[in-house]
Amino acid sequence: MEYDPNNIFAKILRGEIPCRKIYEDEHALAFEDIAPAAPVHVLVVPKGEFVSFDDFTAHAPASLQLGFFSAMRKVAQQLHLPQNGYRIIGNHGADAGQLVPHFHMHILGGKPLGGLLAK
Amino acid sequence: MEYDPNNIFAKILRGEIPCRKIYEDEHALAFEDIAPAAPVHVLVVPKGEFVSFDDFTAHAPASLQLGFFSAMRKVAQQLHLPQNGYRIIGNHGADAGQLVPHFHMHILGGKPLGGLLAK
Repeated sequence: MEYDPNNIFAKILRGEIPCRKIYEDEHALAFEDIAPAAPVHVLVVPKGEFVSFDDFTAHAPASLQLGFFSAMRKVAQQLHLPQNGYRIIGNHGADAGQLVPHFHMHILGGKPLGGLLAK
Repeated sequence: MEYDPNNIFAKILRGEIPCRKIYEDEHALAFEDIAPAAPVHVLVVPKGEFVSFDDFTAHAPASLQLGFFSAMRKVAQQLHLPQNGYRIIGNHGADAGQLVPHFHMHILGGKPLGGLLAK
């Protein structure tokens, strides 16, 4: 899959579409999911043109990879999630239901999250 | 939560308990989950004493962090998951149902995986 610079997360990163921002630094932007699956549901996107986890971990500079995962930790801390717990999810491709072709991770929390997969 | 060197993944890393190994390098070990939630269900654990995603991304050396996420990509590729897709999941703490206090990530695939959370 090639990177499409007109995907919705690219537009959010460029400020062309608004978001409910939770956190931002030089490596990543975090904002609320518009269709939350839990009381806390945040998307974290790296500031770079990467389609997927596969693409990101293969091709992103080390500083961006470290900064992205560090930003995820900071988002969870900012939202006071570590004490009760949270889940991070990354979807790659069709079987996982990846909807936007810009690498992103979900942070979910605020309630007991149940099993790994929907039945 | 403090790291308990007698957790089951530490014992697997030390070879004290067997596992169905999928992949191993200097940074990570990957093996089949004993209670698979999907046709492909692999656990990836870093070679270091980290309780959680929070602990790992805050305290692991950069080389180990990069090596761990790179190992996850390699496992997915080795299992031919990128074409149809796969999901990666990390559980931190009670709300997420983290069972073993050694940081690990799940790789799930081999079928359409459904929504983000169980209902």
